[in-house]
Amino acid sequence: MLLSKLVGNRSKDNPSDAMIKSHALLVRAGFIKLVANGIWTLGTAAKRIASKIENIIREEMNAIDGQECTFPVVMPRELWEESGRYLTIGEEMVRFQDRNARDLVLGMTHEEAAVHFARDNVVSYQQLPCMVYQIQTKFRDEARARGGLIRVREFTMKDAYSFHISQEDLERYYQKAYDAYTRIFQRIGMKNVVAVKSDSGMMGGSVSHEYMLLTPVGEDTIVLCPQCGYKANMEVAECVIDTLKDEVSAPKEEVFTAEAKEISEVSAYLGVPEHKTIKAVSFQVKGETTTVLCFIRGDLEVNEAKLKKIIRKDIVPSNLSDSDKLVAGNIGPIGLKLEDAIIIYDASLKEANNMVVGANREEYHIKGVDFARDIEAKEYYDIAKVKSDAVCTKCGGKLHINNGIEVGNIFQLGTKYTKAMGMTVLNKEGASVNPIMGCYGIGVGRALASVAEESCDDKGLCWPMSIAPWQVYLCPLRIDNEEVRAKAYELYEELKKAKVEVIFDDREASPGFKFSDCDLMGIPIRAVVSPRSLANGEVELQLRDGSLKTNVKYEECIGKIKEIIENRE
Amino acid sequence: MLLSKLVGNRSKDNPSDAMIKSHALLVRAGFIKLVANGIWTLGTAAKRIASKIENIIREEMNAIDGQECTFPVVMPRELWEESGRYLTIGEEMVRFQDRNARDLVLGMTHEEAAVHFARDNVVSYQQLPCMVYQIQTKFRDEARARGGLIRVREFTMKDAYSFHISQEDLERYYQKAYDAYTRIFQRIGMKNVVAVKSDSGMMGGSVSHEYMLLTPVGEDTIVLCPQCGYKANMEVAECVIDTLKDEVSAPKEEVFTAEAKEISEVSAYLGVPEHKTIKAVSFQVKGETTTVLCFIRGDLEVNEAKLKKIIRKDIVPSNLSDSDKLVAGNIGPIGLKLEDAIIIYDASLKEANNMVVGANREEYHIKGVDFARDIEAKEYYDIAKVKSDAVCTKCGGKLHINNGIEVGNIFQLGTKYTKAMGMTVLNKEGASVNPIMGCYGIGVGRALASVAEESCDDKGLCWPMSIAPWQVYLCPLRIDNEEVRAKAYELYEELKKAKVEVIFDDREASPGFKFSDCDLMGIPIRAVVSPRSLANGEVELQLRDGSLKTNVKYEECIGKIKEIIENRE
Repeated sequence: MLLSKLVGNRSKDNPSDAMIKSHALLVRAGFIKLVANGIWTLGTAAKRIASKIENIIREEMNAIDGQECTFPVVMPRELWEESGRYLTIGEEMVRFQDRNARDLVLGMTHEEAAVHFARDNVVSYQQLPCMVYQIQTKFRDEARARGGLIRVREFTMKDAYSFHISQEDLERYYQKAYDAYTRIFQRIGMKNVVAVKSDSGMMGGSVSHEYMLLTPVGEDTIVLCPQCGYKANMEVAECVIDTLKDEVSAPKEEVFTAEAKEISEVSAYLGVPEHKTIKAVSFQVKGETTTVLCFIRGDLEVNEAKLKKIIRKDIVPSNLSDSDKLVAGNIGPIGLKLEDAIIIYDASLKEANNMVVGANREEYHIKGVDFARDIEAKEYYDIAKVKSDAVCTKCGGKLHINNGIEVGNIFQLGTKYTKAMGMTVLNKEGASVNPIMGCYGIGVGRALASVAEESCDDKGLCWPMSIAPWQVYLCPLRIDNEEVRAKAYELYEELKKAKVEVIFDDREASPGFKFSDCDLMGIPIRAVVSPRSLANGEVELQLRDGSLKTNVKYEECIGKIKEIIENRE
Repeated sequence: MLLSKLVGNRSKDNPSDAMIKSHALLVRAGFIKLVANGIWTLGTAAKRIASKIENIIREEMNAIDGQECTFPVVMPRELWEESGRYLTIGEEMVRFQDRNARDLVLGMTHEEAAVHFARDNVVSYQQLPCMVYQIQTKFRDEARARGGLIRVREFTMKDAYSFHISQEDLERYYQKAYDAYTRIFQRIGMKNVVAVKSDSGMMGGSVSHEYMLLTPVGEDTIVLCPQCGYKANMEVAECVIDTLKDEVSAPKEEVFTAEAKEISEVSAYLGVPEHKTIKAVSFQVKGETTTVLCFIRGDLEVNEAKLKKIIRKDIVPSNLSDSDKLVAGNIGPIGLKLEDAIIIYDASLKEANNMVVGANREEYHIKGVDFARDIEAKEYYDIAKVKSDAVCTKCGGKLHINNGIEVGNIFQLGTKYTKAMGMTVLNKEGASVNPIMGCYGIGVGRALASVAEESCDDKGLCWPMSIAPWQVYLCPLRIDNEEVRAKAYELYEELKKAKVEVIFDDREASPGFKFSDCDLMGIPIRAVVSPRSLANGEVELQLRDGSLKTNVKYEECIGKIKEIIENRE
């Protein structure tokens, strides 16, 4: 490829809306261009990277007996009604009508399509296990698309669906998929990825894992134990519940706390640590008027995902306003008049004593509360977010909190979809049963951006060899010099013949200009041909990651380049 | 791949709605499954074929310096307003709103996206020519989806867009694209394809070609001259205009024709051949009340595409009803009272004499009309469809009429999009000019179905080696026999090691059952391992196209298979 003809201009200016490095650098390198909110064009460099990622994914999916298919982007309403998701999925799913007023949707996931395809085609246990997958465009109408290719509305995703005769068989296959994912991220050169247990959300099912790239700019929160390797998404993470029980329980006593309402204010006013106070956090059941009121220690936060699982309903945060029954900032469990509310106490309160709680009247709290003694609560559940330095339930080590980008996920779906959509197979005994499903996703564009986020420096991108858009940046200096020109073009043709992927900077431009483009684009190997190098019959090779800079004889150049590529793929 | 695990059951029953062979066979072979009108899932066999077609297209596009990109499926209204097509394209384009009430469309072609991407990235003549392309999902809300994968609503298409500094450069590149297309169809094993001149329709521009697979089930009509090779889509096809002028012009005379109104009736009543009568054919300008009335010989049909070009307006067929000005079935050019109508005479009438025309009153026609003598018409144009056996304008040969399926098209677009969307580059002289564009499309699914349509027989599909889903169907007979089982599995593993694409029929089933599945699926090479063949230490090889049936020594089997594959790819 001649750089002069590449549709994709480099720029020195960061796009004004770019908050993370991969967004800024991919735009500046001319690899991607915004078309509309969350909708991008991938130029040829980005497409080459994406194709390499797709091929690695494809190889690993085929290695675990995946059958590549193509499910439709546009699907009929009826298909999504079969699973029940036409109504339960919100605005993130695009719905529209065709010319005959038929309702259609844009696919954001393809469980329905996979079951639709498999249910006529898989009828016996002898055909199981089987796995179908696709690498296909999807659309999800994200409320907040951002971060370049990290969170978009239109994206290419590999989504895979496996079918099994038993839970044991699913678990066996799930482990194979888990390992395939590990290999995929390794092969595309992603370094800090961990698989964490996760909440399976709208997908249904029980066991699931998310693959998280650990990075400060990630929007997900992950709990890690450096001592034993415990890893979990914050949504499902657990820690040892610290009861903080004092040896002696003081008597319960109402105390004046003036204007103090926030935990920090109450704590300061009374001179007690925040973890000896409790706060009330309220939610509302989505689509209902029911209030969910949580009591939790002042130093802890409510984990909404855990709470949803406990009450088995979707919730939204709500603010309780003052009324004859409630005094905001002074709400407490003793003497609470709230009716028709679901009241949940965090597990850490069960044995707590000497606690400060709201007195349910203006300017007062109650101190010396002993939950076992003073509260008739029965609903103690673990609803707290794990805090940094909390104690690991597995090994007693101290837990770390990290940010991460979700780059892949795998789910044990169970029979949710096969049951709802009436897919059955005959088992060995001749009985009709619903197959058990697993599903497995990776976003291609997000993987691309995640590698960019992790592998870059002040000068630009820095692609791993396995997914680099081109392996070699051939860079003649003084291309107006006849010998340089001739040798550079000769080398270009020979590299192509040797199946080396080369981008040839055929422009008349200064060395600084060329080198900075090369660095920005992140091509792994830079090969410089200049009057000076040719005077010694040499080509200068330099690796983008700084690990090598050497001169090689012109004749040995291609051999050396091939050697470097092989060692790094 | 083990056949027992393949998601895609074979069936003996033709789908009831299948009117053409490719539709019936692809469904029966379990390769595709209908999801909604014009929307299909491709199973892994079909996907493998599609991927091979895509790779051949990709190689040929890259060979003419194409830069593969990915443009969005979903695009904002604003982009399509820039080109003016948001309003001019009809119901075939899907329009919808996102959660923020922004208007979006589903792409059915990507000129707008290509110009949007190129206009910031290509700024100088030095970057030209360049070509960007993608292989991507598209959606066109076809009024009449049918024919399996031939005419669908959702489809995968390769669409390419080239940019040029001059018309000469476009024409040079257009020829390269033309040749690349010829190679593509050849490589995917399509045999009866011709490139014909076409009407460029809504794409704008002037010169364009369609690649047509000649087949009786095609919906397009193509005019071919077997003598000189002239080829054109019926929409633009020309022939020598036969004036049919008699030596002596009879006098004009009104004659009683009773109830005779249709050409066949008038011709029979008066005992004159149909080509000595004329008929009136009426249209209406789309969105207006203006009538377009065409007079054409009784034996000819109006070519709407030619007519549209002449009047430069879109038209729809209309029926003129009786009124004080018109007598349907007796309309003629003499004494016609129709006002505010566009009246067009076919070129064949200009010198015609002794013609029968309507008399504009009930039960009467006028015979002996000499157009040069009796009619003051000035608007003679070629608006007739070419008939079989008409005379070729190039060589005087007799023209043939064929049906065809459009499998690809290439257009010289001119500056329509770059002008409308404000894309300019600096030319050599430093002036700002609009680049000239070409565009080039191939539908992947339609190509797949077209090859299937052309390459099949009573038993099933018959894939060319270059795009076959698997190259070898490994077929053990009596797999319950231990030696057969062992040898077959050994061969399966060795074939995979040798990078031969093999589907292994590992089922316990009768030879007839297995052979008919193999034939239906159309796998090029069948390798049979049976107690009988193994008794001689042999494997039986048979080609699906009937060109070879032979026994080879077990040890030589892989070598022979590789040789067959190489000779046929």
